[in-house]
Amino acid sequence: MGMPEEAAVARIGEELALLPADLSEEPGSVALVGAGPGDPGLLTLHAARALESADVILHDALVPDGILGLARREARLLSVGKRAGRASVDQDLTNRLMETFARRGLRVVRLKGGDPFVFGRGGEEAAWLRERGIAVRVIPGITAAMGVAAELGLPLTHRGAARSLRLVTASCRTRAETEAMDWRSMADPGTTLAIYMGRDRIACVAEALAAAGLSPATPAVAVENGTQPGSRHRFAELRRLASTVRELDASAPVLVVIGDAVALAPGWRGRDGLLEPAVPAARERLCAAGAC
Amino acid sequence: MGMPEEAAVARIGEELALLPADLSEEPGSVALVGAGPGDPGLLTLHAARALESADVILHDALVPDGILGLARREARLLSVGKRAGRASVDQDLTNRLMETFARRGLRVVRLKGGDPFVFGRGGEEAAWLRERGIAVRVIPGITAAMGVAAELGLPLTHRGAARSLRLVTASCRTRAETEAMDWRSMADPGTTLAIYMGRDRIACVAEALAAAGLSPATPAVAVENGTQPGSRHRFAELRRLASTVRELDASAPVLVVIGDAVALAPGWRGRDGLLEPAVPAARERLCAAGAC
Repeated sequence: MGMPEEAAVARIGEELALLPADLSEEPGSVALVGAGPGDPGLLTLHAARALESADVILHDALVPDGILGLARREARLLSVGKRAGRASVDQDLTNRLMETFARRGLRVVRLKGGDPFVFGRGGEEAAWLRERGIAVRVIPGITAAMGVAAELGLPLTHRGAARSLRLVTASCRTRAETEAMDWRSMADPGTTLAIYMGRDRIACVAEALAAAGLSPATPAVAVENGTQPGSRHRFAELRRLASTVRELDASAPVLVVIGDAVALAPGWRGRDGLLEPAVPAARERLCAAGAC
Repeated sequence: MGMPEEAAVARIGEELALLPADLSEEPGSVALVGAGPGDPGLLTLHAARALESADVILHDALVPDGILGLARREARLLSVGKRAGRASVDQDLTNRLMETFARRGLRVVRLKGGDPFVFGRGGEEAAWLRERGIAVRVIPGITAAMGVAAELGLPLTHRGAARSLRLVTASCRTRAETEAMDWRSMADPGTTLAIYMGRDRIACVAEALAAAGLSPATPAVAVENGTQPGSRHRFAELRRLASTVRELDASAPVLVVIGDAVALAPGWRGRDGLLEPAVPAARERLCAAGAC
């Protein structure tokens, strides 16, 4: 472990020394809490209550201020979690901070974007704490796919268009990563595919899906800052998805949804300023199948 | 359309005649609201506010009283949605009720279990209303898979165990239905499979997945009334899943989760009175892969 983390732990230690001693006489606990996709109104009631009563909140860097503002004035807020190139060390530090605070008898909230058990490493954090005898509670959150779908009016499953929904992170930056993915099973026209953390990889994802047999005319949408005030999205057919995402010039994480059901969103077909030109092929296929 | 529905509409019409006339001077609207998996604390803040301000709530039969209790005393509550053998007629009636109430200027909430856009027919209802010029807003909900996963401490994705999550409804009651499903793509050991409305079909699902190559030792869990006071669950390997679900003797909908990540739930391996005998094979595989 390098110096920056040691320094962080030392700082936290100093903070802890300032806490009232009697706090440590009650048993502490950790709640892994889903912050949802960004809109504070999409927190669950349980999540809001956990934030309101927490002594310490260890939150992902991307959780918006509107959500952190639900914390008590006395609560200590710390931004933890992944930053580029430091993921594994940060995870270790996060684990140790949760343990340290809980052992001091504090009510700890580990606040994670989306749902803690969907691409959130919540399973690793829960296991780590349980192995050390620390009580863990998990409060689910609205995951990005559902948040964005509601925002766009895009049904994730739909009779005649999508019988199932699949949430994936795509790994295709190296040939080995690409070959390890089961693209053929993902290239299923009856499934809506939600691709998390897709911004940098969408070109190779789109290429791999098309190579695996998914129609290049399959409707898709890329969404940045979904459910938040700065929400932006672009629709495109799969064949133009990569260049469309580049035009979006996103700085925040992008969620990509691919599948025939995307054409059922009211924005598909040009009612939105950010839209690609209308491409009616997918909608016609859907209507022929009785789905519109 | 048969008599019972006509009678229902007539009753509603009488109800409407009793409403203050000035209500109809404001434009009405419909919110499709996700009620989540059952625990009222898993409603989103937006959903709770929508319920608190609704004039009329058209709710699925299975939405618990604890959630309906959030409605204003003056709100009219109507149970709609699917009952055995009457699904399509009911859907038509539900659509017309939403339209009728909205045209009267009322704030209508269509309250659906889980998330409106995941196996909820929310897409059909939204399209139907939009085609008639009625404003529709969608408020997402915690879907059963995430609710149940949080309750059981079961990570739906996990490094080394599950790279993706797939939500499906299984259709296998007839040979044609079974043959229409892409079992090979579902039998992916790197994916966690959440099967909705699985109670009556779990025997043929388990059989089809095993026939498509999924290991019969794959861990699974069946959950009835997840996140609610009457929540019950049973763990089992895939090979014993069907008989285990029969023992559960469920009367409510059952959610089934299948995949190596299920073995990471703390209840797997006998800490729960309802458990199958411990079957360490899956956990050993996971530990060998560095996932525990």
